[in-house]
Amino acid sequence: MATSTASSDESSRCMKDETPDSENALNLDSIRECLIRLEDTIVFSLIERAKFPFNSPAYDESSLGIPGFCGSLVQFIVKETETLHAKVGRYENPEEQPFFPDYLPPPLVYPHNYPQVLHPAAASININKTIWDMYFNQLLPLFTAKGDDGNYCTTAVCDLECLQVLSRRIHYGKFVAEVKFRDAPQDYGPAIRAQDRDALMKLLTFESVEEMVKRRVEKKAMVFGQEVNLKDKDDKGKYKVDPSIVSRLYGEWVMPLTKLVQVEYLLRRLD
Amino acid sequence: MATSTASSDESSRCMKDETPDSENALNLDSIRECLIRLEDTIVFSLIERAKFPFNSPAYDESSLGIPGFCGSLVQFIVKETETLHAKVGRYENPEEQPFFPDYLPPPLVYPHNYPQVLHPAAASININKTIWDMYFNQLLPLFTAKGDDGNYCTTAVCDLECLQVLSRRIHYGKFVAEVKFRDAPQDYGPAIRAQDRDALMKLLTFESVEEMVKRRVEKKAMVFGQEVNLKDKDDKGKYKVDPSIVSRLYGEWVMPLTKLVQVEYLLRRLD
Repeated sequence: MATSTASSDESSRCMKDETPDSENALNLDSIRECLIRLEDTIVFSLIERAKFPFNSPAYDESSLGIPGFCGSLVQFIVKETETLHAKVGRYENPEEQPFFPDYLPPPLVYPHNYPQVLHPAAASININKTIWDMYFNQLLPLFTAKGDDGNYCTTAVCDLECLQVLSRRIHYGKFVAEVKFRDAPQDYGPAIRAQDRDALMKLLTFESVEEMVKRRVEKKAMVFGQEVNLKDKDDKGKYKVDPSIVSRLYGEWVMPLTKLVQVEYLLRRLD
Repeated sequence: MATSTASSDESSRCMKDETPDSENALNLDSIRECLIRLEDTIVFSLIERAKFPFNSPAYDESSLGIPGFCGSLVQFIVKETETLHAKVGRYENPEEQPFFPDYLPPPLVYPHNYPQVLHPAAASININKTIWDMYFNQLLPLFTAKGDDGNYCTTAVCDLECLQVLSRRIHYGKFVAEVKFRDAPQDYGPAIRAQDRDALMKLLTFESVEEMVKRRVEKKAMVFGQEVNLKDKDDKGKYKVDPSIVSRLYGEWVMPLTKLVQVEYLLRRLD
């Protein structure tokens, strides 16, 4: 059994850009700090998106009418923003995965020297299609009001930000898996060689830690989503995004998908 | 003297998109609500930017090296993002002003029917150059750590978000001014006809309300910038962005620039 007590969601890492190619770039504490910090960003981005109602025309694939583009407004914004960001090297960073990886232009700027700490197979793991479907079909209707206020462009930009941070958080699973593997190769090796997904998933699951993460993100939604005013007592109990939905987002999607990324990575770790 | 007790920073409005062309679209309460809500967005965006150090190469105008583009990475990201957003109609919204208004493409999508509540002169008021200079030369060094972590693309995207929300907040002055003028045309008329900037500025200044806004945004920086954990006591006194800097941002720049926009608008209100 893996000796690490860190769960899939408490033991990720941040690329220490100061130390390229260093083995020390994989640091358990900095991974944990980074994942915890991403929780704040996820909550902020949901709160910003919740300013607007559902705004279904932003998702209508038949009505945009941009010459040469077939898809919805949100598809247009995400695809074109990714094209722009690819030009300045966003996807050279192993922490970033595009939603529309086909036909992205190469970077036009001199690439940053990111530390190479992952197995090369990491580059082929991208579950953004699953994240996209989860976000639009399951999550979005849960935390936005019904209705249409016409702010489709801003709405789509908020969606882009939610998608990007969820993708970054979930694909951190690659780094989580790498640090766990290095910590206990003897525990993971047999399951990897047997290509045993279930065994790997079991090694990566720490239910009590997952429960703690769910409670923490729920608390963050309460703190960051409250109405702050100058009265002694803030308006408790009124939140911009329902905290239980943020807990559910983590419990049903963010943590399971992070573990899926970890399993996919580990299955190829000895290739 | 103007009878409205609403200050420049407590009386703006939100475009009620449900009621295009309606005089009622200018609603004091919804303006106030919208400005207060934008405070949250401003604090969130500063917190997100503060994740990264200053990252000066993102602002170096000589080293980007993109063929056909002369400027810094942040200029490239802002300009190209505005070009993309213009295509989907962002700048048809009278609440939005681009930083690079020259050569923006026309919208490729059917325009949303925004309520026309402002005097047509509003369209010519854009102080984004001043906001740009304030942000990069004064504000940014105050709330980011010294250093360079190589995350230039993400840094520039965070800057874009800070710039966009500050611009939106400050240019709300147009709506604030319109609602104040409608509330008391007899008070503003003489100063407008005399083109008396100082008199207008005096009519628009409510020091006690400005002090309250500064205290509220400082409190928001404390609440939204704290480390949230599951201990009974959160880590009080450690904030991701110094709350006094957010107070100063409002006192020295956001509120004075909003009043500048109001004065510019009122000077043309009777044209």
